[in-house]
Amino acid sequence: MIKVIKNGNVITMDEKRNKQIEKLDIVIQDDTIIKLEPTYLGDADEIIDASSKIVMPGLINCHTHLGMSLFRCTNDNYNLNDWLNKKIWPIEDKLTSKDIYYSTLLSCIESIKSGTTTSADDYFGYPDFIEAIKETGIRELFTSCVMDSDGNGDKRLDIFKKLYNENKDMSDLITFSIAPHSLYTCSSLYLEKLRDLALKYNLPIHIHLSENLDEVKEIKQKYNMKPAFVLEKLGLLKCKLILAHCTYLDDDEIELLKNHDVSIVHNPVSNLNLGCGIAPIKKYIDNGLNVCIGTDGQGSAINIDMFYHMTFVDLLQKGLYKDPTVMNSYDVLKLATINGAKALGLEDKVGSIEIGKKADIIILDYDDISIYPTANIISQIVHNTRNYHVITSIINGKTIMHNRKLLININENNLKNEIDNIMLKLDIH
Amino acid sequence: MIKVIKNGNVITMDEKRNKQIEKLDIVIQDDTIIKLEPTYLGDADEIIDASSKIVMPGLINCHTHLGMSLFRCTNDNYNLNDWLNKKIWPIEDKLTSKDIYYSTLLSCIESIKSGTTTSADDYFGYPDFIEAIKETGIRELFTSCVMDSDGNGDKRLDIFKKLYNENKDMSDLITFSIAPHSLYTCSSLYLEKLRDLALKYNLPIHIHLSENLDEVKEIKQKYNMKPAFVLEKLGLLKCKLILAHCTYLDDDEIELLKNHDVSIVHNPVSNLNLGCGIAPIKKYIDNGLNVCIGTDGQGSAINIDMFYHMTFVDLLQKGLYKDPTVMNSYDVLKLATINGAKALGLEDKVGSIEIGKKADIIILDYDDISIYPTANIISQIVHNTRNYHVITSIINGKTIMHNRKLLININENNLKNEIDNIMLKLDIH
Repeated sequence: MIKVIKNGNVITMDEKRNKQIEKLDIVIQDDTIIKLEPTYLGDADEIIDASSKIVMPGLINCHTHLGMSLFRCTNDNYNLNDWLNKKIWPIEDKLTSKDIYYSTLLSCIESIKSGTTTSADDYFGYPDFIEAIKETGIRELFTSCVMDSDGNGDKRLDIFKKLYNENKDMSDLITFSIAPHSLYTCSSLYLEKLRDLALKYNLPIHIHLSENLDEVKEIKQKYNMKPAFVLEKLGLLKCKLILAHCTYLDDDEIELLKNHDVSIVHNPVSNLNLGCGIAPIKKYIDNGLNVCIGTDGQGSAINIDMFYHMTFVDLLQKGLYKDPTVMNSYDVLKLATINGAKALGLEDKVGSIEIGKKADIIILDYDDISIYPTANIISQIVHNTRNYHVITSIINGKTIMHNRKLLININENNLKNEIDNIMLKLDIH
Repeated sequence: MIKVIKNGNVITMDEKRNKQIEKLDIVIQDDTIIKLEPTYLGDADEIIDASSKIVMPGLINCHTHLGMSLFRCTNDNYNLNDWLNKKIWPIEDKLTSKDIYYSTLLSCIESIKSGTTTSADDYFGYPDFIEAIKETGIRELFTSCVMDSDGNGDKRLDIFKKLYNENKDMSDLITFSIAPHSLYTCSSLYLEKLRDLALKYNLPIHIHLSENLDEVKEIKQKYNMKPAFVLEKLGLLKCKLILAHCTYLDDDEIELLKNHDVSIVHNPVSNLNLGCGIAPIKKYIDNGLNVCIGTDGQGSAINIDMFYHMTFVDLLQKGLYKDPTVMNSYDVLKLATINGAKALGLEDKVGSIEIGKKADIIILDYDDISIYPTANIISQIVHNTRNYHVITSIINGKTIMHNRKLLININENNLKNEIDNIMLKLDIH
């Protein structure tokens, strides 16, 4: 099966090509990109005309909680503790695996309709969750979040192990991480056990770190050292680490982390909305750390549209450093694509449009007078793209959405009804 | 002519009603709202069905430069001086009145398509500019920006006076401000002359103030006092003042300003993008200052979609104060509606849906699975509304857009061609 994306203005994100935008035809055989050439004249089973459109790698969302779409817009004017104690946790206690299935399905649709082709989830691994992932055909770094502060450390780990064993060889699209929730909800013994498991099975560890100042203070009191040094002390730096947030890292922590296989997932919107602050990622990048982007869940971030979150990445650094030259749009695109792939251990598969990589590709259409004209298309992508500009989404060679229509077998009205019932049942408002 | 908006979920923004959302029919006679009742059973010439939709006041953009749509996405990774010196000013020198007409027309369309019904412009008053405003039917606080640092103070003032005299009685939709560019581009003598003119003709003064720290420093050196005290010294506090930016105001400046007829226009996106910083508007609001929202021009803000800018208003304060309770979505809606009306001296006419006020009303449709579900519609409006959710826009009783179709006589393809020609002619990239 040969699919060709013809006549597009292609942003490959391949640094070796050293060009931001090129006129290229992209030839896909089954799931893999096999040719990139100015004019492909060979055979094709399917041609997608991308004339006057932008073609780019699908976006990679490196930290989210896909099961949390139900909690969208629930935290207006709450402080974090009240929101968690009064809203999120009492409801989460009542969520069934089927509820999580529907909420995850919604998040997958939101992801696909806004150009995300890969995401790294960090939620509780209900069996139906993975069904939703499979049905939508999105690429996923999957896990089931674990912690032992509630006394259920082994039980949670068993849930993860079962899911891992049942699904690890199930699909090219699904890989796994081990996800200790955080340094404040996991004991040191538990973290050491998870470290050994990660090393044994060669899995990355995905963990929240230094999200706000209270957390940093708590960890310093508990261990008498800064959070990054706790990672070192517990041997976690021997693993591949995906560190969500890092809103606060001191210079000595940056110095330590940059010598290890560590990626920082910047979640700018969630960090603002929960009153955490602004992570100085410019400094992390300058120090050679691999920085990528996460949306976090809709509970704190309201939406998981990576285009929206990219805008914040760019603007917040310019505002924080009081210097418009500290970031540019192409840098931000890197964080959302190739750096994300590196963070998730998928750099050989996705993150750029290159021969031999999997075809995770989106097409943007800017035929939209309400944002006309555009002097710089890369800036337009980062600053002025709404989900509706993404018209086509291809994942692993399969066209999941075309002309804004989902090509997967999901009854949208039925899904909305199920969600409405859950919202009523759980009294989410 | 009686127009009725039926069955909508109405956000009136009328504090006397003390309700955030009500089921109401809105009855409009010609340009004016004459009835608000749960079920209107009287006669109607036109009925707009708003069942399951949100109906709210049109948004008020209190600081923009509508002629600058040509400069969208031109400032990626430039510092302010380079951008102005190398890009904006050389091109502005070559702009014809007809170029400004087309670029303004585009900005008006962008405004209408994203729910703005009133804006306060601050650009150079070419005669064709006002033609674009008239053709689109948007409500406008108009001006022609003046300064004397380039030796053309009197010439610029003459341009303003001519436009004012020719157009002041032309339309209910157009009012005027006097717009000295800033304290650093206007001499004290010139500012005093403008003050006298503003008092004589009872016009507000619209001026950039304390946009970045360099400006604050320059004014302190020039006058040996802080910017707000310069306004006092020059007698400008006798006028109604619309102060754009105020990214930096000290406590004593806030104390001084709050006792006068002063409004602060917060431009969060532009302030980030130009590296100015984040204005602590929570403090301004707590001190009783009237704070409203501006987008600034597309040159610095990339777009003038007030929904997008409202999101930044909310999130930036939460991040700046490291406290998610300092702002809530309803507060932000106030800034974008009723506070904007107060700032522009239009509080008797617009800013809320009230009997006796002009009908400046927009309708939102959230039948959109990609952002489903919504626990809190007010939060959804501020955090998760894209321009395409605005389906209807009514200004002064006239339906300007319905079901996303502009009902004004503009040939969009022709407009795009004209814009493409200007971009080529002026080599804007």
